Amino acid sequence: MYFCVVMAKFQVNILGCGSATPTARHQPSCQVVDFRDKLFMIDCGEGAQLMFRRLGLKFSRLNHIFISHLHGDHLFGLPGLLSTMALHQISGSVTVHIFRDGARLMKEWMDFFNRNSPFEIIYDIIEEGERRIVYEDSGLTVETFPLYHRTPCSGFIFREKPKQRHLRGDAVRFHNVPVSQLKNIKDGGDYVKDDGTVIPNAMLTTDADPSMSYAYCSDTMMDKRVAADIKGVDTVYHEATYDDSLEAMASERGHSTARQAALIAAGAGAKRLIIGHFSKRYNSEEILLKEASEEFPDVIVANEGLRVDLE
Amino acid sequence: MYFCVVMAKFQVNILGCGSATPTARHQPSCQVVDFRDKLFMIDCGEGAQLMFRRLGLKFSRLNHIFISHLHGDHLFGLPGLLSTMALHQISGSVTVHIFRDGARLMKEWMDFFNRNSPFEIIYDIIEEGERRIVYEDSGLTVETFPLYHRTPCSGFIFREKPKQRHLRGDAVRFHNVPVSQLKNIKDGGDYVKDDGTVIPNAMLTTDADPSMSYAYCSDTMMDKRVAADIKGVDTVYHEATYDDSLEAMASERGHSTARQAALIAAGAGAKRLIIGHFSKRYNSEEILLKEASEEFPDVIVANEGLRVDLE
Repeated sequence: MYFCVVMAKFQVNILGCGSATPTARHQPSCQVVDFRDKLFMIDCGEGAQLMFRRLGLKFSRLNHIFISHLHGDHLFGLPGLLSTMALHQISGSVTVHIFRDGARLMKEWMDFFNRNSPFEIIYDIIEEGERRIVYEDSGLTVETFPLYHRTPCSGFIFREKPKQRHLRGDAVRFHNVPVSQLKNIKDGGDYVKDDGTVIPNAMLTTDADPSMSYAYCSDTMMDKRVAADIKGVDTVYHEATYDDSLEAMASERGHSTARQAALIAAGAGAKRLIIGHFSKRYNSEEILLKEASEEFPDVIVANEGLRVDLE
Repeated sequence: MYFCVVMAKFQVNILGCGSATPTARHQPSCQVVDFRDKLFMIDCGEGAQLMFRRLGLKFSRLNHIFISHLHGDHLFGLPGLLSTMALHQISGSVTVHIFRDGARLMKEWMDFFNRNSPFEIIYDIIEEGERRIVYEDSGLTVETFPLYHRTPCSGFIFREKPKQRHLRGDAVRFHNVPVSQLKNIKDGGDYVKDDGTVIPNAMLTTDADPSMSYAYCSDTMMDKRVAADIKGVDTVYHEATYDDSLEAMASERGHSTARQAALIAAGAGAKRLIIGHFSKRYNSEEILLKEASEEFPDVIVANEGLRVDLE
């Protein structure tokens, strides 16, 4: 009998981390969470499909797209991306989780531009302020929570479900556990022999790996309710549009400074913070990293092509 | 008195010359004609605004956008481009020349996404099959003509108006022509002295530079009516999606081969042909250049960033 431990893949790919308009340095907002080879896109700024292809991601694995809010820099890549998918996966489908007006506008365009393709676009309407599980499979949930921007805006939390316990190969062999029992034991069950003897689970397994979680918080002004909603999440992506000197502007425009992003991550008890959605005024994000790092120990500066392992 | 000859600028900038979907090699269709620092965009594939900025072009000089037809790879860059313009030129305006359904769809999006900006988007409706001057100023006309694609499609001809004759500095000085007369003389008038003596224009000027013209033909299958409509144009941009071996597919999909593009340029008596709208199957356009060059002497292969002087 052979036992191997496969590290389940849980990664986030940054496709765009600029704000407002695409620049030579940054694409508008887009990222792709890769959970065990299922791909989940969050926001879809113009140029997303090209970045998607550049990073070697596969359209055939993309079935859910989550749009945080209805500002162009978060969704103007959707018509092109969906048309490319409709062209190449005629019989496929994709679900777009989006506010109602966005679904209406997208539907009008796609009904016209993809009218010759049976590719199906399903719209799941996000309501303002709602906290809801909008996606679930055997290993993952995705839930919405409110952000605080100039227009209704939703964050997304990706939570890995509890994992299976690790089998102790020596014990499983010693007790001659039949293969048919292994799943039950990995799920925490005891092994009951034919003669009624019970081998407790703890003798056959070691603890499961911890389940990881990831929260996407963009766009939003700093708001403690965000920290409360994402409490205990492992990795946080939080917008950090401006530096300290532009805190008033950040607040006025419904955005955050890098320091505020770090305060939210700290308030949530996160282990790691990725900052992004940078104003185009910065030729380097050094000052944003510096200011965030004064409030939180583990800060990663997003960049196009960056892949962060969430495990 | 000082006379100088200013070469009037008339250039085409290629922002995208790929087909269907953006790839690592090519952006979807977009080009910008620069006529004496006024910019005219033809088609606006996804990513156009980024290329526009990369080529150092100025949004403030862009006032007319011509959309050939309603396929996504020719206009999915419009929402982003127009939103960026609305953000930066709040009091400005732009005219989009487009088929009716395109205007309707764009208006719905822009009314939503730019609802807080007074930036004005004017839609000029192109009718199927029409030949019409859709733009005119003191030096230029732009006219539509039909192309032959799977959906209504319009080409565009840019024609420089007749230019002023060149003053002969020696003769102007010899006859002591007052400055107030110079415009009239450059426009072809004689100089009548106060005493009634007539100095004929031919003694005071040399011929004007020839007026140049440029025709945009994409997307279209090969059709001799195109050659007739653009007869005598100096430079032709013609789609050349496929090589000879895919001629049947070209015809079926409403596209042209490179050889067919060259035959149209030859039939129109053009001086120069730019080929573009390349299928993504080509890792090099060598075969397209070779086949076009067998039918026409002066072929330029389009590429993103290419600038062709039309003077």
